[in-house]
Amino acid sequence: MKRQTVFLINYERTLGKHMLYDIFEKIYKLEKEGKKIVKLSVGEPDWHAPKGVLTATYQAMKHGKDKYSSSAGEIELREKIAKLHSCDVKNIVVTPGSKIGIYAILKFYLKIGDNAIIFSPHWTAYELMCKSLGASAKILKLKQENEWKVDFDALDEIVDEKTKIIILNSPSNPTSHAWKENEEWEIIEFAKRKGLLVLADDAYRDLCFDERKERKFENNLVVANTFSKTFGMTGWRIGYMVAPEAIVKELIAFNQIAITNVPQFLQIGALKALENKDKVAKDARRLCMKRLELATSILKGHVEFSKPNAGFYIFPRLPNKIDTLQFVNEILDDGVAVIPGAAFGDYPQHIRISLCREETVLKSALGKIVELIR
Amino acid sequence: MKRQTVFLINYERTLGKHMLYDIFEKIYKLEKEGKKIVKLSVGEPDWHAPKGVLTATYQAMKHGKDKYSSSAGEIELREKIAKLHSCDVKNIVVTPGSKIGIYAILKFYLKIGDNAIIFSPHWTAYELMCKSLGASAKILKLKQENEWKVDFDALDEIVDEKTKIIILNSPSNPTSHAWKENEEWEIIEFAKRKGLLVLADDAYRDLCFDERKERKFENNLVVANTFSKTFGMTGWRIGYMVAPEAIVKELIAFNQIAITNVPQFLQIGALKALENKDKVAKDARRLCMKRLELATSILKGHVEFSKPNAGFYIFPRLPNKIDTLQFVNEILDDGVAVIPGAAFGDYPQHIRISLCREETVLKSALGKIVELIR
Repeated sequence: MKRQTVFLINYERTLGKHMLYDIFEKIYKLEKEGKKIVKLSVGEPDWHAPKGVLTATYQAMKHGKDKYSSSAGEIELREKIAKLHSCDVKNIVVTPGSKIGIYAILKFYLKIGDNAIIFSPHWTAYELMCKSLGASAKILKLKQENEWKVDFDALDEIVDEKTKIIILNSPSNPTSHAWKENEEWEIIEFAKRKGLLVLADDAYRDLCFDERKERKFENNLVVANTFSKTFGMTGWRIGYMVAPEAIVKELIAFNQIAITNVPQFLQIGALKALENKDKVAKDARRLCMKRLELATSILKGHVEFSKPNAGFYIFPRLPNKIDTLQFVNEILDDGVAVIPGAAFGDYPQHIRISLCREETVLKSALGKIVELIR
Repeated sequence: MKRQTVFLINYERTLGKHMLYDIFEKIYKLEKEGKKIVKLSVGEPDWHAPKGVLTATYQAMKHGKDKYSSSAGEIELREKIAKLHSCDVKNIVVTPGSKIGIYAILKFYLKIGDNAIIFSPHWTAYELMCKSLGASAKILKLKQENEWKVDFDALDEIVDEKTKIIILNSPSNPTSHAWKENEEWEIIEFAKRKGLLVLADDAYRDLCFDERKERKFENNLVVANTFSKTFGMTGWRIGYMVAPEAIVKELIAFNQIAITNVPQFLQIGALKALENKDKVAKDARRLCMKRLELATSILKGHVEFSKPNAGFYIFPRLPNKIDTLQFVNEILDDGVAVIPGAAFGDYPQHIRISLCREETVLKSALGKIVELIR
């Protein structure tokens, strides 16, 4: 039988033996076997859906809100989101997670041979999606010693006639660095001049320590957002896209053809979550800042890293004498999971640590990391 | 900005003004405005998730089963499904609805210029997915006067070197006809000889009046299945694929890259639903048969149709003097929604009626249809 095997092949080639997702699957397996793992590997808050969300969801299920529904999303939820982003409801579509929305956007814009610009270190899903579509990712490597800032000259140089999209992930996974708002703006303006779309993955934006509001609507901008991080609702698989109306129509058509709808009862839960968004986001930021201070105090002097201004990751560089993959395996044997930097691009000496655990657990796990480095 | 608009364009071209999905969106709109519509348009059971499913789901949510989970699906659910299909757990992947699984399979197998064989009348999503991938659908028209039976000579003729897949949808949406098991088997054998994959969309299989068991695993077969129809859980968006291990690996990779996981709490609910599958399916079949008898007694003599042997649709041909689109609009004004046959291929004189309403409502709605035909 002839088939394309496009996903698997790219996927294995890109990530090699230290696959991000394979590490996740292995951890699930170890846990099923009863082993306790402190998962500083997973980009997942340890807080859960806000108060009232579960009840609202259950009530909706009980009241028959579990049937086919609009492929655009529930109108009440879309209206609320439109208000947050200062745009019209026609600019909003609800998606089962922001990932599939990002995939759909790349699918619309990238023909075979086209490319998207991705700032690195980066979330590899972007790159894998591009490749699975027969397009490519143009990787623009950023540097820790520059505090992961954009290099505009390099950006100008890397854009070619096959470039269609710039992906903006600020705050970034894995660095937890957000560019200044004027720097982000400069990227959007640059894209405008070049006739490119900016796809902003704002999963972590609510967690900017300088308290940024939702990104405003722009004509050459598509914003992907999610309930996963701010609200700790990772497993709910609910996100949304903010985009010009013509693009929203495409996304709705994609939903109609391949998805149908996001479960209505989950959307009713998500609407409930938005009621107290300001407070939820504030609490989450405060917790992130506290944990970052703790991690900084423990790790200082043992690894180098540029201190984040958002979110819950740190992306330190291990001393050169250390073999990163061996390190990641040994610390996993010791009950602590982290992700090798190679899973985020050409950063073989780095690791990504997620700080989403309570203080005592974090202290002990980071202590083990320091000990192993020594 | 350059973009592909591949979905929307194909979609509008394929379905013209009488778009299936647009009718759905219009009905939602009318209902939001307070108008009562008897929706014999939507392929959606009026029964709900079996007893215990909602509670199991809610309990799972409350116990923290709302975080990232395996991209393959919950092992307990996969094991149960594997048993039903007499295969290994490695042959099962859980998907957010069977639609996205079907899309992923077509994506793997169809390169630009390739084609898939689709028996018509057909669920247009298949065709739209093929087109959105730069592939095409080879439509094999079946005839009502032959009771929608396969024409094997025509099948042999239509296959060419660009054919990669045969889509088998038996029982079919919209005819509710299931081919005999030996006819289905002949298609699978034919595909084997030609080196083709058979993609069986078994959404309605549990509703075969002759009580068929789940389709058994085959080496050149991918089965798409869903909790939507048998269990009335359309809005839950949970389905699964049964496939050779190499293909399952591809589907898991697709989930990892574009989906992450189906909400764990929904999978726990789905597992609960499977506990009483035999009884649930039996009750559903009995209800479908009863409603079909009622519909037959009301419609006989007014429209021609080949009596289904499964499911809950009928696909009658209106008398030639009637303009179908006008008919569909007038009956919608009268509070009854049905779908024009043109939404299922080259069947401009047909309509699809879904019989998923209680007896009294059905009687009244079908009565209106008969009256308008007269």
